[in-house]
Amino acid sequence: MRDDEVGAEVNSAFERSCCPLTNALDVFGDKWTLLIIRDLVLGKKRYQEFLSSPEKIASNILADRLKKLEASGLISRRPYQQNPVRYECFLTAKGESLSPVLTAIISWSQEHYPGTRLFSSISQHETTGMKQTGESSG
Amino acid sequence: MRDDEVGAEVNSAFERSCCPLTNALDVFGDKWTLLIIRDLVLGKKRYQEFLSSPEKIASNILADRLKKLEASGLISRRPYQQNPVRYECFLTAKGESLSPVLTAIISWSQEHYPGTRLFSSISQHETTGMKQTGESSG
Repeated sequence: MRDDEVGAEVNSAFERSCCPLTNALDVFGDKWTLLIIRDLVLGKKRYQEFLSSPEKIASNILADRLKKLEASGLISRRPYQQNPVRYECFLTAKGESLSPVLTAIISWSQEHYPGTRLFSSISQHETTGMKQTGESSG
Repeated sequence: MRDDEVGAEVNSAFERSCCPLTNALDVFGDKWTLLIIRDLVLGKKRYQEFLSSPEKIASNILADRLKKLEASGLISRRPYQQNPVRYECFLTAKGESLSPVLTAIISWSQEHYPGTRLFSSISQHETTGMKQTGESSG
């Protein structure tokens, strides 16, 4: 295969190109997905907990992103109640391995936007009375 | 100020929340912006060069993202011809400081998507005959 055929060949295996950056952005290149990963890192697990974050993600966007995160192998779910069945979400090893990405982004942002402040971890999954800084009561 | 007032206070200073991750994603949280940063790191400077990348960014999206990148202080422009005036783009120090973010994302992606391949740098800004792997001829 000639070098100039690489693009065409790889585009059949990947959606946009063979670039690792591109393929990562196809997984989490939007304004919401990494915020859900952040919330999971902070200890959130349940739908209402994600909804209660100060960025106020819309319910339909949250449902879409959780579905995509599971399809991409970054999270897994397990039921915590029946009738109606409800699920808790967990980072997989693949999802947890995004930690250096979050760290790099946070470091860059703190350098250039000095007014920003990290949220605290939460120790239990309650939908009200959370300890996270800046948490809404939703 | 009480802790539970932090969210409201900071939301007036920042668009969505005081979280550094959130504010970074407000700058580059999409499928295209970091690809333009990548192209700049690889040596691309001109509009047609960005358009020629294998991901085939649409012209209106490219124009929009370049405008936002300049407004955010990540790139600067300077004219390289008159009649019509055309510009070359350059990473500012703020833009260059995204390098660890790109590195972290690429490292994660290469671990989980082993078929991906890094593009090569280009040594000169020509709109045809580029040396970048996977480059289209557009």
